[in-house]
Amino acid sequence: MLIPQSLAYALLAGLPPEAELYASIAPIILYAIFGTSRVLAVGPVAVVSLMTAAAIGAIAEQGNMGYAVAALTLAGLSGVMLLALGLLRLGFLANFLSHPVIAGFITASGILIATSQIKHILGVSAGGDTLPAMIVSLGGHLGQTNPVTLGIGVAATAFLFWVRKGLKPLLRRLGLGPRPADMITKAGPVAAVVVTTLAVWGFGLEARGVRIVGAVPQGLPPLTLPSVSPDLIGLLIVPAFLISIIGFVESISVAQTLAARKRQRIDPNQELIGLGAANIGAAFTGGYPVTGGFARSVVNFDAGAETAAAGAFTAVGLAIAALALTPLIYFLPVATLSATIIVAVLGLVDFSILRRSWSYSRPDFIAVAATVLFTLGLGVETGVSAGVILSIGLHLYRTSRPHVAEVGLVPGTQHFRNINRHAVLTDPGLLTIRIDESLYFANARFLEDCIYDRLADDSPIRDVVLMCSAINEIDLSALESLEAINLRLKEMGVRLHLSEVKGPVMDGLQRTHFLDALSGQVFLSQYDAWVGLAPGPDDGRPQGVATPVTPAGA
Amino acid sequence: MLIPQSLAYALLAGLPPEAELYASIAPIILYAIFGTSRVLAVGPVAVVSLMTAAAIGAIAEQGNMGYAVAALTLAGLSGVMLLALGLLRLGFLANFLSHPVIAGFITASGILIATSQIKHILGVSAGGDTLPAMIVSLGGHLGQTNPVTLGIGVAATAFLFWVRKGLKPLLRRLGLGPRPADMITKAGPVAAVVVTTLAVWGFGLEARGVRIVGAVPQGLPPLTLPSVSPDLIGLLIVPAFLISIIGFVESISVAQTLAARKRQRIDPNQELIGLGAANIGAAFTGGYPVTGGFARSVVNFDAGAETAAAGAFTAVGLAIAALALTPLIYFLPVATLSATIIVAVLGLVDFSILRRSWSYSRPDFIAVAATVLFTLGLGVETGVSAGVILSIGLHLYRTSRPHVAEVGLVPGTQHFRNINRHAVLTDPGLLTIRIDESLYFANARFLEDCIYDRLADDSPIRDVVLMCSAINEIDLSALESLEAINLRLKEMGVRLHLSEVKGPVMDGLQRTHFLDALSGQVFLSQYDAWVGLAPGPDDGRPQGVATPVTPAGA
Repeated sequence: MLIPQSLAYALLAGLPPEAELYASIAPIILYAIFGTSRVLAVGPVAVVSLMTAAAIGAIAEQGNMGYAVAALTLAGLSGVMLLALGLLRLGFLANFLSHPVIAGFITASGILIATSQIKHILGVSAGGDTLPAMIVSLGGHLGQTNPVTLGIGVAATAFLFWVRKGLKPLLRRLGLGPRPADMITKAGPVAAVVVTTLAVWGFGLEARGVRIVGAVPQGLPPLTLPSVSPDLIGLLIVPAFLISIIGFVESISVAQTLAARKRQRIDPNQELIGLGAANIGAAFTGGYPVTGGFARSVVNFDAGAETAAAGAFTAVGLAIAALALTPLIYFLPVATLSATIIVAVLGLVDFSILRRSWSYSRPDFIAVAATVLFTLGLGVETGVSAGVILSIGLHLYRTSRPHVAEVGLVPGTQHFRNINRHAVLTDPGLLTIRIDESLYFANARFLEDCIYDRLADDSPIRDVVLMCSAINEIDLSALESLEAINLRLKEMGVRLHLSEVKGPVMDGLQRTHFLDALSGQVFLSQYDAWVGLAPGPDDGRPQGVATPVTPAGA
Repeated sequence: MLIPQSLAYALLAGLPPEAELYASIAPIILYAIFGTSRVLAVGPVAVVSLMTAAAIGAIAEQGNMGYAVAALTLAGLSGVMLLALGLLRLGFLANFLSHPVIAGFITASGILIATSQIKHILGVSAGGDTLPAMIVSLGGHLGQTNPVTLGIGVAATAFLFWVRKGLKPLLRRLGLGPRPADMITKAGPVAAVVVTTLAVWGFGLEARGVRIVGAVPQGLPPLTLPSVSPDLIGLLIVPAFLISIIGFVESISVAQTLAARKRQRIDPNQELIGLGAANIGAAFTGGYPVTGGFARSVVNFDAGAETAAAGAFTAVGLAIAALALTPLIYFLPVATLSATIIVAVLGLVDFSILRRSWSYSRPDFIAVAATVLFTLGLGVETGVSAGVILSIGLHLYRTSRPHVAEVGLVPGTQHFRNINRHAVLTDPGLLTIRIDESLYFANARFLEDCIYDRLADDSPIRDVVLMCSAINEIDLSALESLEAINLRLKEMGVRLHLSEVKGPVMDGLQRTHFLDALSGQVFLSQYDAWVGLAPGPDDGRPQGVATPVTPAGA
């Protein structure tokens, strides 16, 4: 059942169908040796196939030898990178692809993939790597539409959609049990393949201009060599990196999802090594970039694979059987494959992430929206890069302008909260500021401005306490700012104190002269500071401590 | 007194001496109109001149028309960028250049600048943009050294060093007051210029191969036009951005230092607009990229400039006077200018930042060391980019693997601290984890791993409290992780609670369904959680609450 979809990915990548099957043999064996998941099956997947086509399409013409060599080289580069990331234990890098950005990228890629297949449904040779380019190119070729191909394509697409959406409920209404109904539904794509293949063969539709899969070489994968041309490597290095990261994220998500069901653990760095070995294998056996795919892994999972080797045998067996069956699909129309792809990837399209991120977090929404728009408008590589850069940039922007609260004592407790949100006690001579962020170079100057602003008017404040409960780090830039603040406050006759400084932060401060120069003290807790700095009867500070403050709103 | 140094910067940038003077007239007037500092004087400065030479040297031959036009274009581009950053209120971007990276960059630039001037001392025409390239090129030209030039250069350098280090103490020992001693010391460079100029003129050393400044056109700046060639702009856009940022950082540091002495405030975004206007002015009057310089601003400051216009008049007056005096420096040897530069920039070289960052913060040290090495080895643009990227990268890396503490109650207080650092009370059925970082995409998976690890062994834990005092933000990725944690703990029969959630974070959570799905409660303070979750006599939880824990070290 996986065969049509597998051939379809090769079509998507612009490679001959056998590349797909080759890419499913050596990589699976290598992954089984080096990877950690017992059920993950590596091979070509939709998004990586699209990225492969985009990367190679820019530098080589589809269908000639250079294109195939570029695909091998891309797999080889990606393999080396994954292996290096794993050996250097850099698996955490994948964490910088946020969930919303991944969701947006998958959705936009699904739209791109579906659109890229319309040309096969129409039977024309349009091009384009971006949605606008594809639409313009399709529009220009509309006049050359092959009516027979269009008929097959539209019929197959409509049938597959109906199988996916309408067939199962119908079968259940007809009284079938859930398991047989599921089986019949899953056989739908096979029916589409069989019927359209027989139609082309029986009515000689090839002569009417319907493109068919044609002869696929049988036999085991050939030994191939990726190119080591520095020019080619230079052109492919950025796409290879993006394919590696996207492939890794997709693979580890599948592996973790399946492992969680069986309470197994996945080691991300070992996974990188496994995927790296798999891609290097693909590079030497006529394949193209591979990663762990959901559909093929579920087959292993359902087969109850208990060891990695068992899963690998199942998968390799399937792939070799597929190779043996290739003569049967000689007359399979390409339009049917495209219909399979379109129906499969539209299942990936889910715009709900836009709504969810809009309602929860505006920066997340901006990152998702940019990922979707850039992927559709400027291509997969720009899209995913924009998403990552924007989400990191927005995170840095927010931490560079942290939330700052003036806090007071919650009556009857030893707990301090924002004076604008809670009814708390304050002391006019004591300003307590809680900075809700680690202090580092990006917000060091902000901290200075913030404290000077509070003291700008002629205030009765004699003591400033920096409540450090949310400060997880103070870097050298921020330390210099603190030294400047301490000095300036001292000139103004105001003492600077710290409270609730965390262990690791205190360890750092103790290696400097800052604590010697500090005009005030370091208190274990904010409550100690409150008690310790309470005005005495004769210290000249304003009396009337502990004025209840009413929250100003929010 | 500023004249020799000013001419020297033009030499450093590879431009004719008058470019320097032109660059000090229109920009000063425009800055006075649009900038905020009353004493800042804009004009060419050493580091920006070096960056200009590096940027243009790569694409044009020194001394021909293309080189001058490229300099104008670079100033124009930089001006437009600064203006745009100011209008878009993006002045905070400069905060991402950390203090240590700036210090490292200035030190490395000082070494590069000094090395670049050795060729003028030797009287040879060597090249190179990086330290190794300069050394190799100097080595190759060593045989062509002009002995007379070398004599003048070495004598001038030695004299200027002695003036800087030895003269003032000597004068003080001879009984002069501090002010006259200071005046005489400052006149040292003028003496060097006068003596070497007279020597060249008197002994006809020009015929012996000593390179001289020669004729400098007199008169006001010409009207010039920067190029709008897309090719040239494409080549200069990255250098222009780096020059803009470095220039802005240098300028704002000078402005803030001087403003702090007079308790004035500087608005970074308005400064950007002022500098942008100044650079656009330079582009149209034969100049090259300018920024606020320390030496020239101090002249204004010492002159007691009370308004921006007064400062501008002083500075423009000086520049016009300098133009008028140019015939007097016809015979000034270039080697003397180079000696001036070498002595001035070696004052910028300060490796103490390496020691300070090493002892306080290893990530800061890595960023500084990389900045220094990359600047020396690969040039100014690579150096500063590497510093920024590394410091951001290391910050993100640290926040992606936050410090996590298991906390307990400090006896006799309502305060909770790390069980490994303080003698605190704990309850075997209650696990309280304090994550010392905001939760966002980069550490969302880390949080999951961390909590699952604590619960991996067969523990008596029935309640997990996430103490959120250090969590300043929870983004959508982290929210999804929290939902997953809540679900998985529920399956294990463990309740998840939150405590000390900050206002802004709570606002966000309340817009989602997370709080409805949460298996436990949200407590105002950790102490409330401690009291609320204390084991009752009949709830089946292990008794023996409040076991004192001895810190395990540190």
